[in-house]
Amino acid sequence: MDPAVDRKVSGIVAATFTPFNPDGHINPAVIGPYVDYLTKKQGVTNVFVNGTTGESVSLSMEERKVLAEVWCREGKGKLDQLIVHVGCMSLKDTQELARHAEEIGADGIAVISPSFFKPSTADALREYLKQVAKVAPTLPFYYYHIPAMTGINVNARDVVEGIEQLIPSFRGLKFSGTDLMDFGQCVRLSQPNWSLLYGVDEQLLAGLAMGAEGAVGSTFNYMGCHTKQLITAFKAGDLSQCRSTVICCVLLLFTGFNLGVNKQLMIEVSGLSLGPPRLPLLQCPADNSQAIAKKYHSLFPDP
Amino acid sequence: MDPAVDRKVSGIVAATFTPFNPDGHINPAVIGPYVDYLTKKQGVTNVFVNGTTGESVSLSMEERKVLAEVWCREGKGKLDQLIVHVGCMSLKDTQELARHAEEIGADGIAVISPSFFKPSTADALREYLKQVAKVAPTLPFYYYHIPAMTGINVNARDVVEGIEQLIPSFRGLKFSGTDLMDFGQCVRLSQPNWSLLYGVDEQLLAGLAMGAEGAVGSTFNYMGCHTKQLITAFKAGDLSQCRSTVICCVLLLFTGFNLGVNKQLMIEVSGLSLGPPRLPLLQCPADNSQAIAKKYHSLFPDP
Amino acid sequence: MDPAVDRKVSGIVAATFTPFNPDGHINPAVIGPYVDYLTKKQGVTNVFVNGTTGESVSLSMEERKVLAEVWCREGKGKLDQLIVHVGCMSLKDTQELARHAEEIGADGIAVISPSFFKPSTADALREYLKQVAKVAPTLPFYYYHIPAMTGINVNARDVVEGIEQLIPSFRGLKFSGTDLMDFGQCVRLSQPNWSLLYGVDEQLLAGLAMGAEGAVGSTFNYMGCHTKQLITAFKAGDLSQCRSTVICCVLLLFTGFNLGVNKQLMIEVSGLSLGPPRLPLLQCPADNSQAIAKKYHSLFPDP
Amino acid sequence: MDPAVDRKVSGIVAATFTPFNPDGHINPAVIGPYVDYLTKKQGVTNVFVNGTTGESVSLSMEERKVLAEVWCREGKGKLDQLIVHVGCMSLKDTQELARHAEEIGADGIAVISPSFFKPSTADALREYLKQVAKVAPTLPFYYYHIPAMTGINVNARDVVEGIEQLIPSFRGLKFSGTDLMDFGQCVRLSQPNWSLLYGVDEQLLAGLAMGAEGAVGSTFNYMGCHTKQLITAFKAGDLSQCRSTVICCVLLLFTGFNLGVNKQLMIEVSGLSLGPPRLPLLQCPADNSQAIAKKYHSLFPDP
Repeated sequence: MDPAVDRKVSGIVAATFTPFNPDGHINPAVIGPYVDYLTKKQGVTNVFVNGTTGESVSLSMEERKVLAEVWCREGKGKLDQLIVHVGCMSLKDTQELARHAEEIGADGIAVISPSFFKPSTADALREYLKQVAKVAPTLPFYYYHIPAMTGINVNARDVVEGIEQLIPSFRGLKFSGTDLMDFGQCVRLSQPNWSLLYGVDEQLLAGLAMGAEGAVGSTFNYMGCHTKQLITAFKAGDLSQCRSTVICCVLLLFTGFNLGVNKQLMIEVSGLSLGPPRLPLLQCPADNSQAIAKKYHSLFPDP
Repeated sequence: MDPAVDRKVSGIVAATFTPFNPDGHINPAVIGPYVDYLTKKQGVTNVFVNGTTGESVSLSMEERKVLAEVWCREGKGKLDQLIVHVGCMSLKDTQELARHAEEIGADGIAVISPSFFKPSTADALREYLKQVAKVAPTLPFYYYHIPAMTGINVNARDVVEGIEQLIPSFRGLKFSGTDLMDFGQCVRLSQPNWSLLYGVDEQLLAGLAMGAEGAVGSTFNYMGCHTKQLITAFKAGDLSQCRSTVICCVLLLFTGFNLGVNKQLMIEVSGLSLGPPRLPLLQCPADNSQAIAKKYHSLFPDP
Repeated sequence: MDPAVDRKVSGIVAATFTPFNPDGHINPAVIGPYVDYLTKKQGVTNVFVNGTTGESVSLSMEERKVLAEVWCREGKGKLDQLIVHVGCMSLKDTQELARHAEEIGADGIAVISPSFFKPSTADALREYLKQVAKVAPTLPFYYYHIPAMTGINVNARDVVEGIEQLIPSFRGLKFSGTDLMDFGQCVRLSQPNWSLLYGVDEQLLAGLAMGAEGAVGSTFNYMGCHTKQLITAFKAGDLSQCRSTVICCVLLLFTGFNLGVNKQLMIEVSGLSLGPPRLPLLQCPADNSQAIAKKYHSLFPDP
Repeated sequence: MDPAVDRKVSGIVAATFTPFNPDGHINPAVIGPYVDYLTKKQGVTNVFVNGTTGESVSLSMEERKVLAEVWCREGKGKLDQLIVHVGCMSLKDTQELARHAEEIGADGIAVISPSFFKPSTADALREYLKQVAKVAPTLPFYYYHIPAMTGINVNARDVVEGIEQLIPSFRGLKFSGTDLMDFGQCVRLSQPNWSLLYGVDEQLLAGLAMGAEGAVGSTFNYMGCHTKQLITAFKAGDLSQCRSTVICCVLLLFTGFNLGVNKQLMIEVSGLSLGPPRLPLLQCPADNSQAIAKKYHSLFPDP
């Protein structure tokens, strides 16, 4: 593997939304301005494309490929790290997307567990992940742990322990769960070239306390700069500063937050035309989105 | 819609396994002999293709199309009803498979709820199902309710109540859940041209008692003729006969039954080359499959 | 053990409500009229006292003893079988109530699993039940399986298999769960002197189909005579009659049914002064209870 | 209320084990030495008596009273704060224990939600808690939130918001859950005289990051002094020191940790005769407890 793959990911990574046209088709033309918004307005230079925030499993294979390609092309020279999530329900499809990510020059791939047929043991999942990694051996490989969505009953620690033996390109995990004990075990088992990225935005401070080196999340699309301040304050041991940011985040996310609301808030804050989510997700009702945008602006006034 | 679509489904429907080659590719050549086995040895003339038993979501779009086509071609003149399950995680993919099923002459389509992004309400799911049905308006449409796999928190009754207004081609449901109160509500709401098919094999007797008109299941691949006897005995009010069949079924399925075991048992009983399941499912260990086949033969001796 | 204990329980058993005064104290004076109502108006001669319907774990030890005593005294010569539920969170308390039930002449005792500290295995639960049974060895002992309330992750079949070796007075179970496969296994393992009583009223027909010999439930307080007709029709193989009763039951219990509503409906139907439930349960709002009583009278008109 | 009640609780609080004799009766004679062990060896001067660690709901009312009394008597002049958990399944019993705690001079009472009959809303639970608090109005009142044990589906934030209007003696909560977002909301809603105590020992660092002022836990019985170092390091912003303690804790609690193991480890470390837990909990097998004690000593060598 190219030594380049050992550049660790740290700091914050925006899990990007997928832009749709009003007619429901994807709208790749927005991706150029999206890159500029993230890098210039939010100071965010790492992205996680086609993840949960990007509604990946609601997309066709062709749509996922087009989106990954456009992000790579538009991000060139502007983004630091571009990780493509390639996980599907089907191993065959996941392998196809992994190969494709390698061809288009992504910086890494991430993979969730299949969630309709759930692996019954950590070993079954490890074998599955291995079969994916081996078709794209030059790309850093990240396991994406999100048990509330996949419904799997397998701890992350049991997946990652010794996995560098099975998957030479393994480079870390996105841990989007609330079992910090399990995350703490992953920290303990971590190898020097792994990146441990925490993925529950509203508990980021707790994730940092347990040892996360960075974070992947949807709210960083519009709260990237505030979150960077949080991480800086945390590293400096300035906990009162940390907590005031956390309190704002908690207030914002208090009630009825879901992917539809989240996307609409990004639209309101960034001005980008991202469109509604795809069924079975529902668009955020207008009065709800205006109320939450108002709250956002009161909590995070423009500098 | 053609009046033909109002032929109701009753009796038993085999949820078919997908045949794989040892190299992991699908093996459509087995489907011809599979049709003959079902119709001649088991007396089963209805099939449910690319469902959970068929590992549909572990297949690529292309594989699902090929399998559906071969089943249609091989089943012509031999099968009574061939329902293709077209549900995917993505609405776009589901629509594509629905259109395809219509083109190849299937007798009906069935659709599960997306399960990674779960519909938050019955209305969101109904809207999703409507968008599928409308691209294949001449095909009888069945909702496939399987909450233990999809993890959705939406009752079947709330999906089907008045759904004939939204989906003119709606013709019933496959109810693969254990909440018989919810199933009882569906029975109450049922329209004359709906077929209510129960889908938890080991509780079939209870499903019949609550009003099921037929059943879709994986065990009917190798226990079709015994199950037909059960239904006959049930209709005749011969409960002691029913119960002895049930007891055998319960004994068989007692411990450690899963899709890998199930498929292996079908291989042992039928002699068809179906191959192992695809990852993340695991193949049944040999000693386990032999023990269960032995049990099968002791419980259900050849006539 | 006295041969009397081998009288099996069959048919229906009313799980009784606990009468409270407006000031929140128990009101044993209602029990005499309650016995008369059940036996004369509903034709129900078996009762299950201090169960879930009776809010047993919301009562003090002293209250449970008083209620059990008054039921024994008032039921003498009028009731056929009186089973006292003696399960508590604490083994010590459960033993004390078991001894008391023996002293006052109950016909049997039933015991749930502790639910705050949940037994981690079937063996832990069996050992617990054994310690209860041995302090009241002359009383028929029933295990009361109600996983939705206790939250235990132990199958009934694993509790009852061979339990007659551990608990000589074991005589059956009240199975208040929806896993009919597990219930089917219990039927298979049943000994000649056991009584298998199903406890999910709205699924009674399914329970009968799987082999239940009787039923314990709260709705039998006011639907006892209709349920007896259902059982008679079932035994006669008259399924269409069964189903019409089931449909009525399903309609009645359709929405928002809980213990508060249930109790209020009994008050409306029977005229007995049972009072509201105790906190943390809430009383049924008046307009809700009137609506459900109206529905009841339209579905089950007085003969 | 006496101003004394406004002394806030901070730092660590040991949730005490209940000592049993080999015959299964409680053994209050151990409590004197237990107080000395905590205060002198572990530097712990706050205790939480008859909580989950103390197997409270497995005790009779009389046993709970005796234990509370002996802890008060033996702790006098040695302990700083003694909080008695008085929660039962029954409101009546809970009130009786609350009155008793006031009579014997406890420093506060804590109450869990009933868990067999679960409150259906936050308001039902608040009303329940109010009925308890009002019988012991001079004692600081703490809500004990432990959803994994009680199984309630009510957020802590909805319980505590504005609760000072309903319960004048309300002084905080023990939050033993992993939903740190919910805990963060409680921090935001906290009043100046509340104490927010976190209760998942292995995630304490995360709890502190979210704003906990102290902690209540079972492991502080034998890791009190190490945990105090953790809190000191946290306050000083010394995160690398924090993490090394956390890693030790995580290593210790890695596999198969439960209340039986926990109690046995306390026995091994402290030398106190606490006996096995009461059924349905099982005693830790000897080889298991020796292995974990060995691990403890390797991770936390005596100073």
